[in-house]
Amino acid sequence: MLRHIVMLRWSDSTTDDQKGDAAAGFRALPDRIPQIKRLTCGPDLGLAEGGYDFAAVLDFDSAQEWREYQNHPAHRDFVAATLKPMLADRAAIQFDLG
Amino acid sequence: MLRHIVMLRWSDSTTDDQKGDAAAGFRALPDRIPQIKRLTCGPDLGLAEGGYDFAAVLDFDSAQEWREYQNHPAHRDFVAATLKPMLADRAAIQFDLG
Repeated sequence: MLRHIVMLRWSDSTTDDQKGDAAAGFRALPDRIPQIKRLTCGPDLGLAEGGYDFAAVLDFDSAQEWREYQNHPAHRDFVAATLKPMLADRAAIQFDLG
Repeated sequence: MLRHIVMLRWSDSTTDDQKGDAAAGFRALPDRIPQIKRLTCGPDLGLAEGGYDFAAVLDFDSAQEWREYQNHPAHRDFVAATLKPMLADRAAIQFDLG
């Protein structure tokens, strides 16, 4: 399996409603994109200085299915309509879960 | 439960041996730090531009146990002796797994 992790930092002007939409949007993805086998996500708990604001961990059966997710309309629309307007920074990685 | 994620970017001078030590060091942590309830980690697969080089996902029963991990000698020694000399950048977050 492949694990995809994205960490997001919101811009200063981001509202609580936008943050709520981002979390809800991530949680709605697996129902619309079956290639996502597991998704956990959530806002930073504020336990340490300098943490990112939000993270999502998505697991896929293969790199091919991860690519299908990347190109899936539901993912593209979510990124363009919800995430991009509120995004200041993004860190991502994909690694093999073995 | 609490999920702690760290993404690391290695400095240009990092050797393959150092990268191997980092991966082995992360995988050895749960045996030495019982507060870690689950750990997955690995190097970036190179599927996308700009990805970080390595990520570790660690799960804890509580924020208190996460703090005990942060202050545990085995973690501190690993960071100081193995990770710090090879580190260019670090992104981290902790969120509630519910």
